[in-house]
Amino acid sequence: MATADPSPVTPLKERLHEIIFEADTPSGRLFDIILLVLIVLSIITVMLESSEEWAARYGELFKILEWSFTILFTIEYFLRIYSVHHPRKYITSFFGVIDLLAILPTYLSYFFVGTQYLLVVRGLRLLRVFRIFKLGQFMKEGQIIVSALRDSRAKITVFLFFVVVLVIIIGSVMYLVEGMVDNPGFSSIPRAIYWAIVTLTTVGYGDIIPQTNLGQFLSAIVMIIGYAIIAVPTGIVTGEVIRNANKSAHQLNTQACRYCGREGHDDDALYCKYCGERLNEEEE
Amino acid sequence: MATADPSPVTPLKERLHEIIFEADTPSGRLFDIILLVLIVLSIITVMLESSEEWAARYGELFKILEWSFTILFTIEYFLRIYSVHHPRKYITSFFGVIDLLAILPTYLSYFFVGTQYLLVVRGLRLLRVFRIFKLGQFMKEGQIIVSALRDSRAKITVFLFFVVVLVIIIGSVMYLVEGMVDNPGFSSIPRAIYWAIVTLTTVGYGDIIPQTNLGQFLSAIVMIIGYAIIAVPTGIVTGEVIRNANKSAHQLNTQACRYCGREGHDDDALYCKYCGERLNEEEE
Amino acid sequence: MATADPSPVTPLKERLHEIIFEADTPSGRLFDIILLVLIVLSIITVMLESSEEWAARYGELFKILEWSFTILFTIEYFLRIYSVHHPRKYITSFFGVIDLLAILPTYLSYFFVGTQYLLVVRGLRLLRVFRIFKLGQFMKEGQIIVSALRDSRAKITVFLFFVVVLVIIIGSVMYLVEGMVDNPGFSSIPRAIYWAIVTLTTVGYGDIIPQTNLGQFLSAIVMIIGYAIIAVPTGIVTGEVIRNANKSAHQLNTQACRYCGREGHDDDALYCKYCGERLNEEEE
Amino acid sequence: MATADPSPVTPLKERLHEIIFEADTPSGRLFDIILLVLIVLSIITVMLESSEEWAARYGELFKILEWSFTILFTIEYFLRIYSVHHPRKYITSFFGVIDLLAILPTYLSYFFVGTQYLLVVRGLRLLRVFRIFKLGQFMKEGQIIVSALRDSRAKITVFLFFVVVLVIIIGSVMYLVEGMVDNPGFSSIPRAIYWAIVTLTTVGYGDIIPQTNLGQFLSAIVMIIGYAIIAVPTGIVTGEVIRNANKSAHQLNTQACRYCGREGHDDDALYCKYCGERLNEEEE
Repeated sequence: MATADPSPVTPLKERLHEIIFEADTPSGRLFDIILLVLIVLSIITVMLESSEEWAARYGELFKILEWSFTILFTIEYFLRIYSVHHPRKYITSFFGVIDLLAILPTYLSYFFVGTQYLLVVRGLRLLRVFRIFKLGQFMKEGQIIVSALRDSRAKITVFLFFVVVLVIIIGSVMYLVEGMVDNPGFSSIPRAIYWAIVTLTTVGYGDIIPQTNLGQFLSAIVMIIGYAIIAVPTGIVTGEVIRNANKSAHQLNTQACRYCGREGHDDDALYCKYCGERLNEEEE
Repeated sequence: MATADPSPVTPLKERLHEIIFEADTPSGRLFDIILLVLIVLSIITVMLESSEEWAARYGELFKILEWSFTILFTIEYFLRIYSVHHPRKYITSFFGVIDLLAILPTYLSYFFVGTQYLLVVRGLRLLRVFRIFKLGQFMKEGQIIVSALRDSRAKITVFLFFVVVLVIIIGSVMYLVEGMVDNPGFSSIPRAIYWAIVTLTTVGYGDIIPQTNLGQFLSAIVMIIGYAIIAVPTGIVTGEVIRNANKSAHQLNTQACRYCGREGHDDDALYCKYCGERLNEEEE
Repeated sequence: MATADPSPVTPLKERLHEIIFEADTPSGRLFDIILLVLIVLSIITVMLESSEEWAARYGELFKILEWSFTILFTIEYFLRIYSVHHPRKYITSFFGVIDLLAILPTYLSYFFVGTQYLLVVRGLRLLRVFRIFKLGQFMKEGQIIVSALRDSRAKITVFLFFVVVLVIIIGSVMYLVEGMVDNPGFSSIPRAIYWAIVTLTTVGYGDIIPQTNLGQFLSAIVMIIGYAIIAVPTGIVTGEVIRNANKSAHQLNTQACRYCGREGHDDDALYCKYCGERLNEEEE
Repeated sequence: MATADPSPVTPLKERLHEIIFEADTPSGRLFDIILLVLIVLSIITVMLESSEEWAARYGELFKILEWSFTILFTIEYFLRIYSVHHPRKYITSFFGVIDLLAILPTYLSYFFVGTQYLLVVRGLRLLRVFRIFKLGQFMKEGQIIVSALRDSRAKITVFLFFVVVLVIIIGSVMYLVEGMVDNPGFSSIPRAIYWAIVTLTTVGYGDIIPQTNLGQFLSAIVMIIGYAIIAVPTGIVTGEVIRNANKSAHQLNTQACRYCGREGHDDDALYCKYCGERLNEEEE
């Protein structure tokens, strides 16, 4: 419905749109891969620039690279606006905003100081790599994971809620126990809760450690609890992955035999396995 | 059976009971959400108050907040007693005791010193958040997890028993090995067992570390054992989650026999397995 | 076959044997529970005695307790020898040796010094708690776990072999990388392998840490590998648990219909679900 | 096709080939086991030699052992070249190169200094242990794991991609938060990302730790995320293991159609699903 478009569609625009926004033509795929490489390079530049040592040594090079990436991304941004069918919709979309945030900081650094913050905003370019999900199979596999996580969302929320209550209780008790010997790591309940999380998740920094015998005994129990309850989210997600796999396996074929009406045939079945009648060709 | 009630039921009581104790009317749900927010805020107050730094800065504010929460919870407590059908039963119930413990410490702090302990008792308010499980779906999801854990209780007990025996043996051996070089972290068997638990559960604080070559070699074996046997609780719980899921999936066939009325038939059943009557074709 | 017994069976012996060696009579069960409590108490004594602090304070008490446990276990040992049908077989059996080792060290401490070693030998009493596996359900649940582990033994061996090769390679590479800056934690390949195991298993003591940028980059990769491959043993054991569960579920009923010969009936089925014929009663 | 062989096949060659390259004859198996022991011993020598302490004490012994292993492996290498049917193919194959790298460093150490690097190259001998996979069952079990991993490769790639993006975001945010108090552990984004990986994977060295309240709060969230998302690779691999197990279970029905000869029928199939011919009753 070209009449509804806010701007006329020209062949050039069509071609640009195909290259920039689609991934199933050779030129579109090439564009996406070049863009991906540029994004990754620009992210690496941002990272190294954050290191004082590297910034001191290669500061000039980083500045040049940064402006090159910014100019390329700026051109890309305006080409996107030009070629897209609904420019306003694109500009206000999630990726539209990210694309803008990818270039703005460099220009702003002209006028403002406080580079550290602008540096991190530039890091938002990273989110642009999610565009690669257009690149074929990734999308599908990612969606299987995401859908398994979405289906187990409620259970995982309950589990996390339980974990939060547990660490608050453990933290409060340890605050009392270790507070008696003035262990500086347990000087307040929030710190004790921080310790409880560090311990329960088996991270175990070792910056806060129990010093009393009772505290070490309770810690040991917390560790064993943490070691055991990790089975819960794993069990939930695994159950969901398997259920999803089964579901899609069973949904693959809903063909019923014309003669005996029974279902459950394999995808490669040509004849009904119950009565021997020929099955319909799929999608006829 | 109003005659059995220890106190007469008035419309006001009925209304209050509905608001306070139930969650499926709009006002009941609103009450629960307000209560939940108050509980969470009061817990945060308790936590921050435990930090000396914050207590010094905002001590006055915390005192005011604390008294506000206490008064609100006190009103709520008496409204509960007033509106409930069996006051005595409520007062002696788990949540009744928790509700009382949520308000008592603040009043007691008038007469006694030793605020640290009273502070933690106030933290018991946290347990009141479990009331939100009345809020719909959480309940169901939580129960699936709980039932999977309950069904695997015996297996997990055996596993934990095995882990306890294992860490005692490992701890004793390491006490001998590291004791030879007077490593202070292995000065007694209980400390060595504490180390064994820290290591086996992959927490790894690093406060106690083996110093001899033999000790490090044995530690490496302990770590690999810990890394491998975490598969056991995970396997158990996952197996249970999947079995439960299958069980409820089989209950999806809700077809009842016309003759004997019993359910639980398989999807491919043609005849009732209990009385031999022919079952209805599904969806005819 | 009393004739084959090396010693005559008297009613007293019979009775003692029933009490000491069996767990399904009330007195046998009581004996086992008392024994279990004594074993646990004696283990706790051994542990506390190993702590210099406790040994200094309660040394006398520990000595008295130790001799009490030893005398009780000695009486028990001789009663076992007296009441058992094949004394020689019992004495040379695994539990017979453990029972002897449980009492010998205390007597030996009369003649020898070097208590630390004898202390740990006494700790072998711990193995006696495995006798409780006679106590009913534990046995069965434990065996399910053990059989799942046994069935996945070969796969887990391959996995561990792979992990060992992996940590040797990682350790060697890190020895080179961190050796360049003379990081004392990577002063030899075995130490570097120790670090690799600490990292891969996500224990992470923090006693040995990479200091070079390249070393930290490689460590990050090792961590992510460790985080990902823990899925392998978990997947193996879970798969085995589920397969075992299915197997036992399917083996529960191998009944075939007399009329149509089909199988797959539920345990509570009275009539064939395929043709409606009455099924045989099981075990008639 | 002996004519295509570049070198004539003599009985000696045949015999040598059987001993060296095969594992299903007694002599072949014996050769493999001896070789495996030699490889492991030589690896242990390399490891101990890397430790300055051991090198100082047993330097001479290590030198002798090293030359013995090298000479034995050299003889083995030339026997392999002699007995193999296609020497060039063997020399340029993966194991051919490894076999050469296993002996070269010792000879090179004559001419060059810089033993540390040559030492590690010698460690490549370790890869030779993979030859033992010829030893029967290991092969099969290993392949089940490998095929489960291969099938879940795409999902695990997506997961790792997600983890990488996550740690970059977390690292950047923590760089900002902890950079405000000049925490040396967060002095650059790459270091902050290193910390994020250490934390997310629950390794938790403790060399870099958050010092601000906000930093600790964010860390706690990172830990809980890490604790929860480990369920994802586990779920993926477990799902794959179970699916593979089921697949091979379904292949147990090896019934072939009398008419078209194809296999892969379900257990309850009465008619061939490919040609409609009636299948034989099983076990008639």
